[in-house]
Amino acid sequence: MMHHDRFLSRAAERMQQSAIRKMGTVLASGRDIISFAPGYPAPDTFAWRDFQSIASDLLSSQDGSLLQYGPTRGYRPLLEAIAGLQQKRSISSPLDELLVTTGSQQGLDLVARVLIDPGDVILVELPTYVGAISAFRNAQASMVGVAQEADGIDLAALDATWERLQGEGRRIKFLYVVPNFQNPTGLLIGLAKRQRLLEWAERRDVLIVEDDPYRELYFEDSASEAEVRPIKADDRHGRVIYLSSFSKTLAPGYRVAWISAPPPLAMKFEMAKQAEDLLTGSLDQRMIHEAIRRGVLDRQLPLLRQHYARKRDVMEDALRREFGDLVSWPNPKGGFFLWLTLPAGIDADRMLERAIGNGVIYVAGEAFYVNGAGKNTMRLCFSAPTAERIEAGVARLATTLRAEMAAATTAAGAAGRGTS
Amino acid sequence: MMHHDRFLSRAAERMQQSAIRKMGTVLASGRDIISFAPGYPAPDTFAWRDFQSIASDLLSSQDGSLLQYGPTRGYRPLLEAIAGLQQKRSISSPLDELLVTTGSQQGLDLVARVLIDPGDVILVELPTYVGAISAFRNAQASMVGVAQEADGIDLAALDATWERLQGEGRRIKFLYVVPNFQNPTGLLIGLAKRQRLLEWAERRDVLIVEDDPYRELYFEDSASEAEVRPIKADDRHGRVIYLSSFSKTLAPGYRVAWISAPPPLAMKFEMAKQAEDLLTGSLDQRMIHEAIRRGVLDRQLPLLRQHYARKRDVMEDALRREFGDLVSWPNPKGGFFLWLTLPAGIDADRMLERAIGNGVIYVAGEAFYVNGAGKNTMRLCFSAPTAERIEAGVARLATTLRAEMAAATTAAGAAGRGTS
Repeated sequence: MMHHDRFLSRAAERMQQSAIRKMGTVLASGRDIISFAPGYPAPDTFAWRDFQSIASDLLSSQDGSLLQYGPTRGYRPLLEAIAGLQQKRSISSPLDELLVTTGSQQGLDLVARVLIDPGDVILVELPTYVGAISAFRNAQASMVGVAQEADGIDLAALDATWERLQGEGRRIKFLYVVPNFQNPTGLLIGLAKRQRLLEWAERRDVLIVEDDPYRELYFEDSASEAEVRPIKADDRHGRVIYLSSFSKTLAPGYRVAWISAPPPLAMKFEMAKQAEDLLTGSLDQRMIHEAIRRGVLDRQLPLLRQHYARKRDVMEDALRREFGDLVSWPNPKGGFFLWLTLPAGIDADRMLERAIGNGVIYVAGEAFYVNGAGKNTMRLCFSAPTAERIEAGVARLATTLRAEMAAATTAAGAAGRGTS
Repeated sequence: MMHHDRFLSRAAERMQQSAIRKMGTVLASGRDIISFAPGYPAPDTFAWRDFQSIASDLLSSQDGSLLQYGPTRGYRPLLEAIAGLQQKRSISSPLDELLVTTGSQQGLDLVARVLIDPGDVILVELPTYVGAISAFRNAQASMVGVAQEADGIDLAALDATWERLQGEGRRIKFLYVVPNFQNPTGLLIGLAKRQRLLEWAERRDVLIVEDDPYRELYFEDSASEAEVRPIKADDRHGRVIYLSSFSKTLAPGYRVAWISAPPPLAMKFEMAKQAEDLLTGSLDQRMIHEAIRRGVLDRQLPLLRQHYARKRDVMEDALRREFGDLVSWPNPKGGFFLWLTLPAGIDADRMLERAIGNGVIYVAGEAFYVNGAGKNTMRLCFSAPTAERIEAGVARLATTLRAEMAAATTAAGAAGRGTS
């Protein structure tokens, strides 16, 4: 076999396996492992019967366009339905601003390809979504992180970062944010802060890429629909590129999501998508369209909010019970994730092997940081496992952490004796 | 609305609307237009009843993984089925060489991202598939064309091109070829030439990207299965990256295709895909897998060969009847396309407006040339329209060409009078 390294592009040389997707390999090993790792929705919440009758109705029509190539922008009635959904989020969206994407991951990739030249600066939250990091890294962006407060990104730190970079003559293309129940922290950007963020972007001439997959999953005991108002809703000048998805509300296997962007950018996203995969799956788009048209999506949302809020409760109760004061986390008001901070000195990535041995996995927090921080953090996903498995998994995690701490103490003691 | 141009990447500045996908807009206008433009399979050949029962069986199982996220490489039983299909094509394929892609367009895009740095030379046939041109252009490749003979790419021209570029100190990454029933010419690379092409690639240390979507659609009156043997079948050293698809045999709306490549490259394709769309649609992969497992694909192939051979006959008969000696074309021995050369001086792109006025469309040949040639050529797709519409469309096309020639003569006459 010949060697292939010399044929690789510079981008390919730097490509890395995603920390989350690597966990898939562990799961596929078939052992009894409780997974808090990938952000999977709970499959028992899927609208199985509705999907079955929709598929049957569609395929029995033998309408050729169901399985044929179609427009890159997306199936037009689906685009119209998405415009309707956006209207409910206070975003006005003429059809020339919309594009169906093959999951929001493709949306992020299109954003990267259309906006980023190698070396351009992209501002991101600390920590931020790993899938965005991968997409921006593959376009050879230079990512700079900005700290978060309890109500989301720290505006003073943001502007200080902008001034520093500007002073260095760097080109800042956009700020990437996940304002609602951020992946990985679960944080919600406050309403007033959203407004000020938009004003900041106008003043500093930076675009905002607003990634919003979780907004429908607010937990009614702690957040309201008013609090998840998109930044895009107040965008008067085409400053915001907005991404959302059906992966967390209907099902991820369909790979149907969308971008809403100013027409000149939407047109470039369309051209980039033409060369990337021509179109998003035709049958998938029709399934999603029918699910909206028949009211399946509207019926699902309140059920999902309850389902995931209950699992959040189970996880928080178990964490308090099993860990006491050892760990801390911001209370998730929606979404899929809980962001755990471990005692200082514990390395969550190094602890993973022990966790796997104990039959539980998570994503070590470092993968979400573009500055190498976060070693003593981890992302726990409470959406997919059952309540019983959440409780058992948290217990396994507590066993793991205590063993890790004991081992650290022993090692420190041995080291201490060694030097005395 | 602000201006967005200054935010675009250099790749985005150069992105263009595909000539084929633009035709979709004409079709969507709703007028009675006979389309020889996009390479659509005939939807009346789709295995509708099989797909309906497969969808019903799958969805009624309520197996969570059907609609869930899954491995980036693809659904494992589908990968195993693809390995089986490749075996029938004399390609041995361990699973670490295979990756499911979201259509072969994504395969081409992954190849571009993993192998091409801006300015790298990619060799392509003259003419070649526009989707490949788009994917390679978006990676800022420098594409250099090589002429074709009746039995495919001209080996002497290929090596002369290599020597010239090598002399200029250019980096040549790979040669892109469509050996079976090429899109757009319908040409088949001869068996002996395939062998010599592989030897050439070894000698000159160039990779071969072999795009093979049409190979199952050989017309039994003029080509045999032996003649469509992939170059990859004889690849002993990992020199060939092989792409194929279910779009032309089962249905394109599923967006399921695959790449087969040496493991180090397959791993990079997987990482690139992780950042591009995470995974190919889960339900789509399961539908395709079941269609293979239940024998649907095997039952379809002989029917498709007959169906498309008959349409090829209808188109060739109509062309001979309507055009006489005005036009010429290589006889398609398989696939979807017929490549027409018009009288010198006729510009197929300029003639398109008249053609649309007469209710027929095609793709002007220039879009398939990376060197600006081919103005008097066009690609006609005979796969999608019915026999009656093929006949009517060719008649409209003949009317169009005669009018265009008459207008050219009149204009030349007027110009002649003007200068006398």
